[in-house]
Amino acid sequence: MPTQSIDLASKLTQFNEYWAPRTVTQFNGHDVMVAKMQGEYSWHSHPDTDDFFLVLHGRIYIDLPDGVTVQLDPGQLYVVPKGVEHRPRAPEEAHILLMEVSGTPNSGDPATAAPRREI
Amino acid sequence: MPTQSIDLASKLTQFNEYWAPRTVTQFNGHDVMVAKMQGEYSWHSHPDTDDFFLVLHGRIYIDLPDGVTVQLDPGQLYVVPKGVEHRPRAPEEAHILLMEVSGTPNSGDPATAAPRREI
Repeated sequence: MPTQSIDLASKLTQFNEYWAPRTVTQFNGHDVMVAKMQGEYSWHSHPDTDDFFLVLHGRIYIDLPDGVTVQLDPGQLYVVPKGVEHRPRAPEEAHILLMEVSGTPNSGDPATAAPRREI
Repeated sequence: MPTQSIDLASKLTQFNEYWAPRTVTQFNGHDVMVAKMQGEYSWHSHPDTDDFFLVLHGRIYIDLPDGVTVQLDPGQLYVVPKGVEHRPRAPEEAHILLMEVSGTPNSGDPATAAPRREI
């Protein structure tokens, strides 16, 4: 059992790729991840898990069906319910805390998903 | 389905009690909560859920068995595994994001738990 806290800013200094979440710990069968975003991701959904976003740095947008867009600034969170199509995007680099059921493909499709990596 | 982000700092302005988490949203059967801490909480454990702590403001300590203490500053998180005895404490006021399976008594015992409240 780890006996040290996890410093999210430090974890984020350890990689530079966008859209490639890194798992920092586990919580009740979920991967707790940090990720860097810039640009537009693809539209996708996760049939088996809600998608938890908390912004740590920068600003992100989550496009939802019917022309709805959620804006998130640092200290703001949003949960995309399972099965709901969404498109995350960030005009400038942004950093997030992300949680999904362990092993969920981040793209919604194992064929295109970033590999799950721990740091 | 909500279509607005949740601003954690705003939620934290809406109450002042310590050790009385407020649920801000749900995630895969978990309550996502904010809480204010000051002083020492009691030793307890949760047999059915890990306990997720992310510090938003201030500094907290989580005492664990065998004299181990985890220190958490803003932007740092720690997951207490299910069943592990722990005692959260905060010498000065601190604010946290907390996640547990929905309905979990925060004290580990329904008889002494703070009621689950939403904001």
